[in-house]
Amino acid sequence: MIRGCVLFATVLLAAHAQAQQPAADEQAVQRVLSEQVAAWNLGDVPGYMAGYWHSDSTVFVSGGTRTMGFDSVLARYRRVYSDRDKMGTLTFEDLGVRFVSTSVAIATGVWRLQRTKDAPWGRFTLILERKSRGWRITYDHTSSGGT
Amino acid sequence: MIRGCVLFATVLLAAHAQAQQPAADEQAVQRVLSEQVAAWNLGDVPGYMAGYWHSDSTVFVSGGTRTMGFDSVLARYRRVYSDRDKMGTLTFEDLGVRFVSTSVAIATGVWRLQRTKDAPWGRFTLILERKSRGWRITYDHTSSGGT
Repeated sequence: MIRGCVLFATVLLAAHAQAQQPAADEQAVQRVLSEQVAAWNLGDVPGYMAGYWHSDSTVFVSGGTRTMGFDSVLARYRRVYSDRDKMGTLTFEDLGVRFVSTSVAIATGVWRLQRTKDAPWGRFTLILERKSRGWRITYDHTSSGGT
Repeated sequence: MIRGCVLFATVLLAAHAQAQQPAADEQAVQRVLSEQVAAWNLGDVPGYMAGYWHSDSTVFVSGGTRTMGFDSVLARYRRVYSDRDKMGTLTFEDLGVRFVSTSVAIATGVWRLQRTKDAPWGRFTLILERKSRGWRITYDHTSSGGT
C-alpha cells in the first residue's frame, strides 16, 4: 500500500504543480483591477484601495520611495491625489496576468490618467495573493513614463 | 486503501505548500545578485547580464519603457551604460528575498551608482525563477529615485 500511495501522491504533486490556473482566478484578478479603475473614476480612493491587502505588510514602491502598510499607502494616495481634478480619469492598458503559484499572481500593465492639464502615465507590476476575502494586491511597483 | 491514500496525499500537499524554502535557495538568489554587482564593477556588462534568464520572455521595465527579451535588455544596458564612467560603481542595499513558490522568488531593494559627476539611485523589484542552470531574473521593474 505504501508504494501505491507514494506513486499516487507523486502523480498528484506533479499534476498540482503543472495544473492550469482556473479561469475563475484570472477573472477574479482582472475584476480586482477593473473595480479599482471604476472606483477611481468615481473619485472613491477608499474604493480603489479595496484592491490592496489590508495589512501592515502591503508595500507600494514608486520611483525611489517605498511605502509600507495599507494605511500609509492610503494616506499617500489621499495626499498625492487630494482632489477630483488630480485624480483625473484612470485607464489600465496592456494588462498581463501570470500565476506563479496557485495563490500568487503577477499582474503587469500601463496606467494612464487623463486630466485637464496633463496626461501622466507609466507602468506597474503588481503581486496579488489569494486571501480569505479574495485576491488582493500585496505589492505594487509603479513607475512614471512621463506626463 | 483509497481513503488512506487520499489522507496521505492531502497531508503531503499541505506540507509541500507550507515547506520552508531551503536556505541554499536563498543563498543562491543572493549570489545571483552579488555576482551581478561584482561583474558590473569590473565593467563587465555581459557578466552582469548572466543573472538574467537567457530568453525572449525576459522582461525589463524602467519608467514607462518595457524591454522584451534578453538580447534587447543587453542592448539597452550597452546603450545606456556605454562606457566605464557611465557604469560607475554599483551597490545594492536593503535587499529582501521572498519565495512565493518553490521555484519563484521576489527580490526587492535599492540600487545606487556612484559616478564621477552624479549618484543616481532607485528601487528594483525582480522575479527570479529556478531554471536548469540555476536561479535567473525573468522580470525586472526598476525605477529611479533621483541623481
